[in-house]
Formats: sequence, C-alpha cells, structure tokens
Amino acid sequence: MRAIRVSLFGFGNVGKAVAGALIGKERFFREKYGIALKVVSISDTSGVVWLPEGIDLREALLVKETLGRLSAWTNDYEVYEFSPMDAVKEIEADVVIDVTNDKNAWRWHLTALREGKALVTSNKPPLAFHYAELVGEAEKRNVPYLFEATVMAGTPVIGLLRENLLGDRVEGIEAVLNATTTFILSRMEEGRTFEEALKEAQSLGIAERDPDGDILGIDAGYKATILHCVAFEPITFDKARVKGIAGITRGEVQRVRARGKTIRLVATVEMGKVTVEPREVSLDSPLAVESHENAAVIKTDLLGELAIKGAGAGLKETASGVVSDVIKAALRL
Amino acid sequence: MRAIRVSLFGFGNVGKAVAGALIGKERFFREKYGIALKVVSISDTSGVVWLPEGIDLREALLVKETLGRLSAWTNDYEVYEFSPMDAVKEIEADVVIDVTNDKNAWRWHLTALREGKALVTSNKPPLAFHYAELVGEAEKRNVPYLFEATVMAGTPVIGLLRENLLGDRVEGIEAVLNATTTFILSRMEEGRTFEEALKEAQSLGIAERDPDGDILGIDAGYKATILHCVAFEPITFDKARVKGIAGITRGEVQRVRARGKTIRLVATVEMGKVTVEPREVSLDSPLAVESHENAAVIKTDLLGELAIKGAGAGLKETASGVVSDVIKAALRL
Repeated sequence: MRAIRVSLFGFGNVGKAVAGALIGKERFFREKYGIALKVVSISDTSGVVWLPEGIDLREALLVKETLGRLSAWTNDYEVYEFSPMDAVKEIEADVVIDVTNDKNAWRWHLTALREGKALVTSNKPPLAFHYAELVGEAEKRNVPYLFEATVMAGTPVIGLLRENLLGDRVEGIEAVLNATTTFILSRMEEGRTFEEALKEAQSLGIAERDPDGDILGIDAGYKATILHCVAFEPITFDKARVKGIAGITRGEVQRVRARGKTIRLVATVEMGKVTVEPREVSLDSPLAVESHENAAVIKTDLLGELAIKGAGAGLKETASGVVSDVIKAALRL
Repeated sequence: MRAIRVSLFGFGNVGKAVAGALIGKERFFREKYGIALKVVSISDTSGVVWLPEGIDLREALLVKETLGRLSAWTNDYEVYEFSPMDAVKEIEADVVIDVTNDKNAWRWHLTALREGKALVTSNKPPLAFHYAELVGEAEKRNVPYLFEATVMAGTPVIGLLRENLLGDRVEGIEAVLNATTTFILSRMEEGRTFEEALKEAQSLGIAERDPDGDILGIDAGYKATILHCVAFEPITFDKARVKGIAGITRGEVQRVRARGKTIRLVATVEMGKVTVEPREVSLDSPLAVESHENAAVIKTDLLGELAIKGAGAGLKETASGVVSDVIKAALRL
C-alpha cells in the first residue's frame, strides 16, 4: 500500500464532492491501485486545516455543512491563516488539488510544480492564460500537471487528446462545452423567454447568481482555449473570439427548431483559432446535446471523425475528473 | 532525438498501412515527440527481412506491392526464415508490433514481454484468450503491452478505459463493435436480402471471403471480451454468449426500421458477463451507427453515461491505433 498525501484547495461544492468521492472510494483505490490517499490539508476562504497524519474527511464535511466554514473547526484541528501560496510552500504533500475559482492560482500552481508536487485542477483560468508556463514547468521537472476536470467535467476529452491519438494530427474540434447555455436554449425552444429560462437555471443552481461567465461564452471560451493548447499549441484566452447567447430571442430559437435544427453554443478550435458562438446544429449531430451533456467532435488525419459525449457539469461528474487525475498522478509518482 | 527500434510482424493490408503512416509521419514524430522510429525487421508469411540499421519502408512497400511477398526481396536485404518466436528472440528491438492474424501469437507476445520488449498489437485472439497472462507479465516486468487497435480500430476506447476514468467504477458497456454487420444490416434496411448484402460487402472488401468471424459475432465477441478484461477483470472468450446476424431476415430488419428503430449487433459487457446479439436500437441512440463507425456507451458510478463514437474499421483508421500505441510505448521506455 502506498500512502499519497493530498492537499485540497477549495471546499465549496466541488471540493465537498471530491471529499465525498475520496471517502466512498477509499477501499476501491486500495484494492485496485494499492493506493491510500491521505488528505493532509483542506483550505477554504476562511482558513486552512492541516494535519500531517490525515484529516477525517467525514468530520470535515460535517463541519463545513453545519458551520459553513472550516475556520469554525477549532476543537480537534489547528486552523491556519495561510495564503494558498504559503500553504503550498509549508504543507508537505505529494498531490495538490485546486478546485477553487482563484484566477491567480497559476502563481501557486507554478510554486507547487517547482517544489515537485503534482498538481490536479478543475480551475480553468490558470490554463486558459498560462498554459505554456505551467505545462512547460511540469514537463521540465517531470511532475504531473493534470486538468481533466477543466473541460467537460470528468468526460475524458483531455486525456483522450493528451495521452491518446498520439499518431494522429488533429485538424479541428467542434464542441459544446457549456451546459448552462444548453439548458437555457432548450427551455427557450419549449417557449420560455431568455430571462425566464435564465431565472429557472439560477433557481435550480445550474446558472450562477452572476451568470455572465456562462451566457457571454467566457466559460466555453476558457475551455475551448484549453482544448487548443492540448490539441495544437499553447494559446491564451484573449486570442479567442467569443460570442455568447445573450442576444438570442425565443423566436429565433423556435424558428430554427421548426426547421429541424437546434441552436447550441458551439466552440470551434483549429490551429491558431478559437471561436465560440451560437450555431445551428442538426438534430442528428453529436453536438445536439441536451441537459448537462457536453460533446466534442474531433477530426484527425488518420482516424477521421471521433465523437465523445458525456457529462459536462455536475458535482459528482466534476469530482470524477479530479479524482481520476489524482489516481493518475499517484500512479506516476 | 531518441531512436526506437521497431520490429513489424505482419505485412498484409494493416501492416502496409502502418508502414505508410510511419513514412508519412516521420517528421511529425521527430518534431512533436523527439522520437525517430527505425523499423529493423518486417515479417510476412514468406519470411523476415532484417536490417539492424533500419529498413527503407518505401522500398519494402514497393517490393510487397509488386512482388507480393517479402521473400522475393533478395537484392539488398537478407531474408530469414524465422518463425515469429525465433524472430522475437533473435531480433533486437524496443517495440514489437503484431498486426498478424496469428491465433497463437500469445506465445511470442509472452516471449517478447519476457525479453523486455514493448508489444503493440491489433491482433485480437491473444487478448481474448490470454489477457490475464499477457497483461500480468507486462505489469510484472513494467513493459508496455498496448492493444488500442484490437477494439474500435484507432478510436481510443481502450485508452479511455485503461488510463482514464480511474476514479470511476464501470457499471456496464453497450457497444457496436463490428462494422461489417452494420453494413449488411443497413443494406437489408434498404431492401437487399442478407445474401445480397453479404455479397456486396465481400465485393467491396468489407467482409472477408470467409465471413463467419463477422456475421456469427465472433469478431464482436473477441472485442467485447477485451473490453470486459479492461473495464472489469480478465475473462476469456469462451465465457461470452455470442449470437450473430445470420438468422435475420430482410422483413424483420425492415419492420423494425418502420417502427423508427434499427437492428444492430450490440455487445453488452457487465461484470462477469459478455453478450453479443442483434438488438433493436433507437435511432437517436449513439449505438445507431452507420457505415464503418463503431460506438460504445459506458456507464459509471460518478460520471453517468459516456459515449464514444468513431471509426471501427479501415486501414488508416486501424494504423492510427497501432501507431499511437507505438508512440505511447516509446514515450514510456
């Protein structure tokens, strides 16, 4: 049995789902991989709980659920006021998990990699803006830097492009990468206005209170940028041409549907070019996704057209990608 | 630049396609991976051409095309009468490629692995009958044993299951894994009889002269067995319950189509259970494939349902899987 020390940054919904998966899978990981994951620290915005012998994840979830923040957990554990950067430097760990929304996380990602720590992340901006530095540093030091959950949640499109199809030259990718816009467009097809559909998405927790990231296409743009980096070469989000769904009317959506097509927010990725925009999609195309599904169609020189479709959102589904990467990192260490 | 010595077994249609891909991609592999693949031997049923300095693949293809067999190539090269077993032992190589149809190849696969040579194969019976021994030996010796092209040609369903989704528990797989039966069933939907459709498939080179392997479901059964081994635990083909498409009539196929469904040869893989049989599939299911496409729908505990669809047959498409595995092996050596 190999013990792998894990330092978890971010204890919101995704972080809690990751903790839940680690609890539920403990025996599975021991039996299948001979790996025992030991979470030595958990951080939320209130503080860092750190215990080199390993934190009781069930208790951590209970504290977070009942008290709302880790800093309230003072009976059994020391709570530190580290910045993420300090925490990465101070806390000895084999794998650092970033499931925060910290836009400046690339700085502490870089530090973690320089200290020889594997890094697993679902946080998109570090990759959408600093791919070349981060992946370059990881490769130079031969340290795993894994980010499956940044695109299509746990659906392994990153693994597919990064570690498979190694003999093929990718010619282009078309993908639906944002589930919130799919939800809104589907509801508009059923007769709701954009505003009604958006409100429903927010009330269901599908869209955030500030929905701009989704409806302006920024989230899809981040993801498409990351796909470009993996399939072609490093590029940054500011090179992407992004148009969201905010200007689309119910009438437009319904007219397209009456013609036997559907509007989806489609990302197109070609060498040097990243575009996100609403497009008409045939109903028999893999891109005509529903609900929380995402899909990508990858064109290559040898294989032709390859489609992958699966969950693109959801807590368990995002945790799937994070946890798979943690195991992948552990197997390589 | 790292030189990787490759020993190629099998120089029929797939072997020639692999050689063609290696020629066309030489520069791509040097630039992207820093790898120079050097083919030191090529075998067909007539003999083994062996040159430690590396064989001119263009010339080898020309000889094979014009003279039909490698043993006729006696002006520049020595031609040896090695058995595959002797060749594996004698010829120094880093990666052995098996694109033969040798049902007993598992014996020399095992020898190659024992000698520390990576093995890449598109040949199904060794895996469908000896998975546990072969993968066990490879893991014990930490030598790559890769077989992407055995299932769904280059569409990376093996890589997806074997190296991704590491945190998920697979609950079941449904897949269409044989393109010849899809072709025949499609033609029957258009009004041809089974015999007419089979003859057309044979004249187009889609079905073999002896079509039993495809139409009795054996090919799909081999592939489904391999999926079971990867997703669950080792099993052998004789445990699979396999029913082909031979008994299906045009009337049946057309009645199902009139009801808005389609008959496809579907493999179902669950823990301890491998089934292949013709089944009715909704037209909006990923399994309602056409032409040379294959598809697999994988159900897991965290991610839910994941679909992958792409080429399941074809020479370039099979070479894609073989060549990707060769690069994967080279990167691990």
